[in-house]
Amino acid sequence: MNVNEYTRQTAHRARQAAREMARAETSAKNTALLRIADIILASVNELTAANAVDMQAAKDNIDPAMLDRLELTESRINAMADGLRQIAALPDPIGEITDMNYRPTGIQVGKMRVPLGVVGIIYESRPNVTADAAGLCMKSGNATILRGGSEAMNSNQAISKCLRQGLKESGLPEDAVQVIETTDREAVGTMLQLPEYIDVIIPRGGKSLIQRVTEQARMPVIKHLDGICHVYIDHQANIEKAIAIAFNSKTQRYGVCNAMECLLVAESIAKQLLEKLGPMLIEKGVEIRGCELSQKILSDIKLATEEDYSTEYLAAIMSLKIVSDIEEAMEHIEKYGSRHTDTIVTENISAARTFMNNVDSSSVIVNASTRFADGYEYGLGAEIGISTDKFHARGPVGLEGLTSQKFIVIGDGHIRL
Amino acid sequence: MNVNEYTRQTAHRARQAAREMARAETSAKNTALLRIADIILASVNELTAANAVDMQAAKDNIDPAMLDRLELTESRINAMADGLRQIAALPDPIGEITDMNYRPTGIQVGKMRVPLGVVGIIYESRPNVTADAAGLCMKSGNATILRGGSEAMNSNQAISKCLRQGLKESGLPEDAVQVIETTDREAVGTMLQLPEYIDVIIPRGGKSLIQRVTEQARMPVIKHLDGICHVYIDHQANIEKAIAIAFNSKTQRYGVCNAMECLLVAESIAKQLLEKLGPMLIEKGVEIRGCELSQKILSDIKLATEEDYSTEYLAAIMSLKIVSDIEEAMEHIEKYGSRHTDTIVTENISAARTFMNNVDSSSVIVNASTRFADGYEYGLGAEIGISTDKFHARGPVGLEGLTSQKFIVIGDGHIRL
Repeated sequence: MNVNEYTRQTAHRARQAAREMARAETSAKNTALLRIADIILASVNELTAANAVDMQAAKDNIDPAMLDRLELTESRINAMADGLRQIAALPDPIGEITDMNYRPTGIQVGKMRVPLGVVGIIYESRPNVTADAAGLCMKSGNATILRGGSEAMNSNQAISKCLRQGLKESGLPEDAVQVIETTDREAVGTMLQLPEYIDVIIPRGGKSLIQRVTEQARMPVIKHLDGICHVYIDHQANIEKAIAIAFNSKTQRYGVCNAMECLLVAESIAKQLLEKLGPMLIEKGVEIRGCELSQKILSDIKLATEEDYSTEYLAAIMSLKIVSDIEEAMEHIEKYGSRHTDTIVTENISAARTFMNNVDSSSVIVNASTRFADGYEYGLGAEIGISTDKFHARGPVGLEGLTSQKFIVIGDGHIRL
Repeated sequence: MNVNEYTRQTAHRARQAAREMARAETSAKNTALLRIADIILASVNELTAANAVDMQAAKDNIDPAMLDRLELTESRINAMADGLRQIAALPDPIGEITDMNYRPTGIQVGKMRVPLGVVGIIYESRPNVTADAAGLCMKSGNATILRGGSEAMNSNQAISKCLRQGLKESGLPEDAVQVIETTDREAVGTMLQLPEYIDVIIPRGGKSLIQRVTEQARMPVIKHLDGICHVYIDHQANIEKAIAIAFNSKTQRYGVCNAMECLLVAESIAKQLLEKLGPMLIEKGVEIRGCELSQKILSDIKLATEEDYSTEYLAAIMSLKIVSDIEEAMEHIEKYGSRHTDTIVTENISAARTFMNNVDSSSVIVNASTRFADGYEYGLGAEIGISTDKFHARGPVGLEGLTSQKFIVIGDGHIRL
């Protein structure tokens, strides 16, 4: 069978499984999730053996950071099982009825939460995404088609075996989770052309993957582009809080999308703030690239270019700009930001209100670290990704982002006049 | 200036206006809506004169039904003004904060409703859509680019003049509403290629328009395809209610997407029901095309073909099928329906629950006419269209469908550990 036909048949089976999953009761879905967690823990040997094959094949081809992400250690396998148990413990979003009200005509109108249907996920490297993503899709009543990186093929197949066994043993359709079993890139191309079978595509990976998916997909895409996050320290900021928040936003972890990439400081407070914060960051090993004004305070830092302000470093580098006021800060964020996460530090409620209303980002934060922009921190339980789009889902996407709502109407013989 | 460049500049101006609209206060938006209603009423002569030019040019080119929809009578002009006043009276969705809760870390996390940005609307014939759609976009803090049918160009320009004058007099940006001033089809092609300026496209018109927009648009689309709506009369239906609902669903208005196109009847109740309902429908002038079983009860009706069950008649024609039970009814709806609106008539709560949970349509109705599937009837105030997609907005789309939600976080110096 050719790749195109194989992918079509996979997608067709997913559509059929999705119908069963949409009807599945909460208890059946939870039983399956817990059963899969047990199977994963009982399969440590099989999983590490499969992973060893991938690691061996990849060790000369990919860089050490990617190789590290590819590895399935025992603690990562435990974490996968824990993740599934956590998803089992979350409330079932499906069937939730809200806003049920009587209308003047006598009918009751409300909304019921329903699954999206079939979720296609295209991702790179980390094999634990296979279990996390499949678990979230199961709980939200969807079927999923997973297309992992070719370097993780054996690991993903081994995880898939656990997932499908657990589904089967719990009386749910195995095909609710399918991992594409070919490394041929044509499989992705085919997936993107099947809107009749796949309701949404979620790409998780580098920019070139996301660009390809966005351009080619004939169904909606939940995508995550850059995280160029700002912290703006207002005139009326509390200096201690400002230092703690800026330092934490940049240094708590470097390679993540919700790390601060640019610090904006109100002119009136710049000297007092930067004389303390600058040396702390430099001592921590952060390279600061600042505007000319900031160079007068921190004499050793490099001059920032236009490009610096548009860069997501994902590293121990940051840009810095001194601005005259909140308006200039918001203009800078509008021009250079990526609408991901931006923080203001201020004690002034008018400034906080202005920033919160007007900054057009998926997370807008007052007096807290940008690092909080995360599904777990927000209480979503888990996240399948962070959306930088405005349509459908914005910011961290949990179970609810994998659902839709239909209208329900209850009458008692009512007709329209 | 060529059409491509003209359209780009229009879209660029819309993006800038959208920023101001997003910040506009509720009172400014309402003042503008009420002011526009006044201007429209004061411009009856100008509007009917412009419409007369369109009517004169169109009278030999389009069919009488389209010509009727093109006409701007005084009562339709009054209705436009009324519509804008109703939108002014609706609560402002923008800035609404929901689900604001403390997290264990001490931060507060919630969601704030925000505009989508720039809404592109591509529509045909009815010039009153210009005012309705612009009003909904204004109230929801969006800018809009309207591309009406070429046959309505003069009417739409005249309405646009009222809209922009009202915006200007209320201190809001005129460019929050722009009507494309060329009939060149290339303008649509260009609009669909500008995701950097246009956040969502809403096509309202025939299938060929919707197909073209869906295929070419590089931004999300809120679209409305077929309405193949069913009424299923269950074994345990109350006959009186069943007759009233089926009759109303088919005959209250024929050419609308939420009219019943197919009646499904449980075998055990078919004779009793159809012997009453059949003659009523036939007397009303409805042509019934039924299955073989139904022909035994209603001897004069035509045999329904496969194609009949897949057809949105939008006319005084309907198909009919006798099914063994609710499962067969749901299978039929799954196979032939368009996921728009489907009704069950039953006194049995288990049947109602099964139907409501399992039928995958944008409106699922128990014991009421399909004709209730409508933004006004649902209390949305007005609708910009009915979405047959699952993503983002489903069913009648009112103000909320033109918005998104961002996360907001409030801390007091909180950092992530």
